[in-house]
Amino acid sequence: MSFDRLIERIIELKNPTVVGLDPKLEYIPEYIKRRYLDDDGWTLKAASKAIFAFNQAIIDEIHDVVPAIKPQAAYYEMYGHYGIKTLEKTIRYAKLNGMFVITDGKRNDIGATMEAYTNAHIGSVKVGENDIEPFGADALTVNGYLGTDGIAPLVNVCRERDKGIYVLVKTSNPSSGELQDKLIGDTPVYAVMGDMCEKWGAETIGKYGYSAVGAVVGATYPEQLTELRKRLPHTMFLVPGYGAQGGGAEGLRGAFDEKGLGAVVNSSRAVMCAYKKEGCDERDFAKAALREAIRMRDDIVQYTNLI
Amino acid sequence: MSFDRLIERIIELKNPTVVGLDPKLEYIPEYIKRRYLDDDGWTLKAASKAIFAFNQAIIDEIHDVVPAIKPQAAYYEMYGHYGIKTLEKTIRYAKLNGMFVITDGKRNDIGATMEAYTNAHIGSVKVGENDIEPFGADALTVNGYLGTDGIAPLVNVCRERDKGIYVLVKTSNPSSGELQDKLIGDTPVYAVMGDMCEKWGAETIGKYGYSAVGAVVGATYPEQLTELRKRLPHTMFLVPGYGAQGGGAEGLRGAFDEKGLGAVVNSSRAVMCAYKKEGCDERDFAKAALREAIRMRDDIVQYTNLI
Repeated sequence: MSFDRLIERIIELKNPTVVGLDPKLEYIPEYIKRRYLDDDGWTLKAASKAIFAFNQAIIDEIHDVVPAIKPQAAYYEMYGHYGIKTLEKTIRYAKLNGMFVITDGKRNDIGATMEAYTNAHIGSVKVGENDIEPFGADALTVNGYLGTDGIAPLVNVCRERDKGIYVLVKTSNPSSGELQDKLIGDTPVYAVMGDMCEKWGAETIGKYGYSAVGAVVGATYPEQLTELRKRLPHTMFLVPGYGAQGGGAEGLRGAFDEKGLGAVVNSSRAVMCAYKKEGCDERDFAKAALREAIRMRDDIVQYTNLI
Repeated sequence: MSFDRLIERIIELKNPTVVGLDPKLEYIPEYIKRRYLDDDGWTLKAASKAIFAFNQAIIDEIHDVVPAIKPQAAYYEMYGHYGIKTLEKTIRYAKLNGMFVITDGKRNDIGATMEAYTNAHIGSVKVGENDIEPFGADALTVNGYLGTDGIAPLVNVCRERDKGIYVLVKTSNPSSGELQDKLIGDTPVYAVMGDMCEKWGAETIGKYGYSAVGAVVGATYPEQLTELRKRLPHTMFLVPGYGAQGGGAEGLRGAFDEKGLGAVVNSSRAVMCAYKKEGCDERDFAKAALREAIRMRDDIVQYTNLI
C-alpha cells in the first residue's frame, strides 16, 4: 500500500534510479529496425515490434542493476493499438525480470473516469466472471489539477493492491513555472499541490515513512527539490530531468532524506541512446545502456547516504 | 486551423451538442454482450468488439443530428490494446459518417513528449517513408498544468492540419475548486488557465472568432461559465457535466455568445443508457439514444440564439 516494494529494491541494489523507456524509432539501432521493418513493411505494427525487441534487450541487461523502468505512454500511443500492445508486453517482461514498473501517463479526469484509468493501469477490469489486469503496472504518474475526487479512486487501488502513484508537482520543463510557481497567498501552486499529496497519502504510509502518493519534481529545479523534500516528509519523489534535460547529480542531493531514500531519479534518452554517444557498434546498444545506467547510478548515489 | 469545421456543423444541424462515447460494459445491452462474449469468451478482446458494435449502432443513428462525438480514452484503455483498437475504429467510423471527433484524453507532458501525444492523436507519425495517422481525431482534450511548452506542439499541429484542442480550465467535478478556485492575486487559477488559452490560441483565430485552443468548463458551474465566456472571447468551450452530473440547460445560457456559438455541450451516459431510462426493448437502444440526443438538443438550443 505504499512504495515499500520499490524502496526495498532501491536499498538492495543501492541504486535510486529508474530507466525511462521512451523508445522513439530514431533511437533504435538500424539492424533491429531492418529486421522488423523489412519483414513486415514500414507499418505501426512493425515499428511496435522493433520497439519491443529494443526494450527487451535493455531490460535483459539492466534488470539486476536498476530497480525500475518508466515507460512513457506517449511513445507507445504514437504507434496506435500496436504500440499499446508493446507497452503491455514491456510491462509484463520487466515484471517477470523483477523490476518495478512506473507507467508515465500523467492521467487525470473526474472520479468515475479516473476509476477506469486506475483499473486499466494499476488495477483490474471485470469482464463477466473474469478479473483481468490490462496493463499491470506497479505505479502510474497522474495530474492533480482536478483535485481530490480525481485522485481518490487511485488511492483506493494503491491500498488494496500495493501500488503507487506520482502526482505532478513541479515539472522539469522550462515553462513549468507559468502556473506552478504562481503564488496562492504566500504559497506557490507546486507547494499547494505537494501539500495535497501529503494529505492524499496520509493513510497509506509504509515502513520507510513514505506513502503510496508520490510527487513528480524535476531535477532541473534543485532549490524546489530541497524545499519540497523538507515540506513533504511522507511523499516519495520521482525526479525526471537528470542528464538530457540538464539537471546535474549534485543538485539532486536535496531530493533524498538522510538515509538516501525518498527519491528515484529517471534517465531515459541518455540510457537508451548510450551506444550513439559512445560511438560503439550499434549491436552493442544494450550493453552500452547498462554502462550508462551504472555511470548514472554511481554519479547519483555518491550524493546520498544509501552507500 | 481552428474549430471552424465543428462550428459549421453546429450551425448546419442547429445543434451545439456532442455525444460522449464512454462505453462501460454495463451500459451495453445484453444481446450485444452475448453475441461477442459467448463467441470469444469473456476477454478484453470480446469486450472491445462488443463496445465497437455498440458505438457503431449509436453513430449510425445520431450522425446526421449530432455534430460530434467525444470518446473518453479511459474507457478504451480499460480494455488494453484491444480497447485502443476499438477507439481507433470508432474514430474512423464517426469520421466516415461526417462527424467531428474529440478524443477526451486530457493528455499532458513536457514538450518533446507532448509532440508524441500530438502526433498520435491529431497528427501523424513517420515510419520510414510512410506518414500514418494512428488515431486521426479532430481534437484532443489536454491539461495545461505544465505551461506553454506542453501546449506549443499541439498548436503547431492544429495550425498545419486544421485541428483543435480543449484545455482543462474549470472542470465539472465536485472537488475541481480545490486548486482551480484558489486565488492567484485576485484571479482564480481557472481564470489564469483561461487567459493562457486565449494567449495560446491567439494566432489561430478562425472565421467565427474562435481559435484552435478551446477550454473545458463544466456545466455544473454556471457562474464560471458566464464569467469565462466574457473573459475569453476567442476560446470555444467544451462543456461536460450536463445531465447525469447535474448541470441543467438553463445554466448553460451563459456559455454561448450572442449568435449561439462558442460552446459545445457534452452528454455521455444519458444518451448511451437512454434505453434503460426509457425502459424500452434493449434492441431499441440506438434509437433511444437518438431520441435522447434530440431531447437534449431541444432542451439546450432554446437557451441559445442558434435558432
